[in-house]
Amino acid sequence: MLYEINEKALKLESQGKKIIRLNLGDPDMATPPEIVEAAYASMKAGKTKYSSSYGENSLRQKLAEIHGVKAENVVITPGSKWGIFATMFLIMKGGGNVIIPTPYWTAYELTAKALGAQTKLLRTELENNWKVDLEKLEALIDKNTRMIILTNPNNPTSKVMDAEILDGIVEIANRKGITILSDEVYATIAFTKTKSILAYDGNCKHILSNGFSKTFTMTGWRIGYIIANKTLIDNITKLNQITINNVPVFIQEAALKALEMRERLSSKIKQEYEERAKLAGKTLAGAGLLFSKPEAPFYVFPKRPGLDSEKFTLDLLDKGVAVAPGTAFGDYREHFRISLTVPRDDIKLGLEKISEALG
Amino acid sequence: MLYEINEKALKLESQGKKIIRLNLGDPDMATPPEIVEAAYASMKAGKTKYSSSYGENSLRQKLAEIHGVKAENVVITPGSKWGIFATMFLIMKGGGNVIIPTPYWTAYELTAKALGAQTKLLRTELENNWKVDLEKLEALIDKNTRMIILTNPNNPTSKVMDAEILDGIVEIANRKGITILSDEVYATIAFTKTKSILAYDGNCKHILSNGFSKTFTMTGWRIGYIIANKTLIDNITKLNQITINNVPVFIQEAALKALEMRERLSSKIKQEYEERAKLAGKTLAGAGLLFSKPEAPFYVFPKRPGLDSEKFTLDLLDKGVAVAPGTAFGDYREHFRISLTVPRDDIKLGLEKISEALG
Repeated sequence: MLYEINEKALKLESQGKKIIRLNLGDPDMATPPEIVEAAYASMKAGKTKYSSSYGENSLRQKLAEIHGVKAENVVITPGSKWGIFATMFLIMKGGGNVIIPTPYWTAYELTAKALGAQTKLLRTELENNWKVDLEKLEALIDKNTRMIILTNPNNPTSKVMDAEILDGIVEIANRKGITILSDEVYATIAFTKTKSILAYDGNCKHILSNGFSKTFTMTGWRIGYIIANKTLIDNITKLNQITINNVPVFIQEAALKALEMRERLSSKIKQEYEERAKLAGKTLAGAGLLFSKPEAPFYVFPKRPGLDSEKFTLDLLDKGVAVAPGTAFGDYREHFRISLTVPRDDIKLGLEKISEALG
Repeated sequence: MLYEINEKALKLESQGKKIIRLNLGDPDMATPPEIVEAAYASMKAGKTKYSSSYGENSLRQKLAEIHGVKAENVVITPGSKWGIFATMFLIMKGGGNVIIPTPYWTAYELTAKALGAQTKLLRTELENNWKVDLEKLEALIDKNTRMIILTNPNNPTSKVMDAEILDGIVEIANRKGITILSDEVYATIAFTKTKSILAYDGNCKHILSNGFSKTFTMTGWRIGYIIANKTLIDNITKLNQITINNVPVFIQEAALKALEMRERLSSKIKQEYEERAKLAGKTLAGAGLLFSKPEAPFYVFPKRPGLDSEKFTLDLLDKGVAVAPGTAFGDYREHFRISLTVPRDDIKLGLEKISEALG
């Protein structure tokens, strides 16, 4: 339904209709010009050849420093999606199941299905502030459970996981010998401190997935990374050798430039999205919607008891606003997801139309 | 052994040793500056966002025109490797076997293994001018055969498949209901006319894999494409959505620029490599090596009866020349592969050292 809404929005736009697109996690800001210039300089310097399937040493080294691991624990991927697919391909090959708390990012379940793996969904609720129930988690684990996938901060709720809950999940996973894949693509720009999965173990027992898309407005550049134990990194690299081969070196050098500017860029983005979240919060509360306050970009995931969000989303699109129905993130028919990835004026206008539509 | 040699060559170079690198299919020429400028202009115009997992319409349309198919039959991939992996992932999922004539490009067999599929290798020989034996091909097919993979022109032999042999293979495949994947990444710059798999059927019964790397010196940019029936294209796109998402739009716009200049660029490359092939042919014949005359860039695949090419390759590397042992391409221990992807002076010097080493 996520993709269907997007296709319909594109079609309406091509017919000349103005659509306020609050349905995608693709920021409205442009990639900072320094990053574009770094890519151009690199291309002109001839960095357009085949290169290592691990990624460039300079970039791996810099990421290792930032995360407090060794360069051998880092592999560069064409987007964090590829990192997640490659990890699941290697760990879930031959079956088994993966536990995913919901609401979740759609791609995890689609990937599991494509690999012939089973998913066990662990529901969390707005009413309980999206907390993972540790007892329920433990009860879901069986002898075929290979992985737990966390998104922290979460998409679509923008909730940062409480450190104690994460402690509990890690304790259970360690005791049961299960690997956690933690997708922390929104962590650098979260409004609240986010405890990383890497905080638990210097030897990378668990796996971190991250990317440059959100922090540096580089969605279309397709660059991310996995941090894990050396064996998994070597195996992802072998898979890279027969699939994507390498991320273009000029894109890796642009990403390295981005990291050099990360304090400035990330605090700017954080600030802007915190303002947007406040703005949205006010209007949505006024419209009688229930939601948890975003603790990270880019989303709000409001609930209206009794709402059929699929119908609502389609009707709203005809009124010129695209959002994503809650059903795209699991069994959340009464919710919908608003992306604050458009300028403030458009957010205001979009939210007004949403309020109107809700009546 | 292909990757091992390359790693060793890189290591020797990092120690300050000069290595003539005749081991990779990565051309020495730079990406034409018009292509670099097109990418830069596109980045500056903000083409740095998420985009379609099918690829850009303009590029699909242009490729469709060139190949005489519809845009709906084209999907853009991050390199032809990804196109081949995605195709094999979808067709070989759940097992079965794939027939691959040898010598072959290493990635096909590694990919089949990674997917849990079986390979049936069909040997061709220099002495028979690398012809596929149609009777042997037919005998190899069983009820679990799902695909035949052809590389035309071939890597490592640089042989263009005779049209009548290809006719015969297609006839057998059609009769038995088996899909052919034809990797034609060297076809545009072949010295001899190469019959495409698309010549047989306007409805894309079989599959074409192609890329921009070789024709436009764009190896490190990672862009290629698959042409196939609409159902397979839709399924590859669905796989793209959960893996690589999209090829950066600025890279697609650079590729579109490349296509606009393709007559000029491809005839220039063809001419240069034909000269290099002549140069190499003379020296290699003088050294008493047996080989078929290259009909396409970039390789010669000479044979010396009794040679242990793995030992020879390692010894040669110590003398400052990197080539690839025949065993990297199947059961061809008496052969080795020379890539003519360095300037002519280096080719000459490299070939002299090879002659010396052979004694």
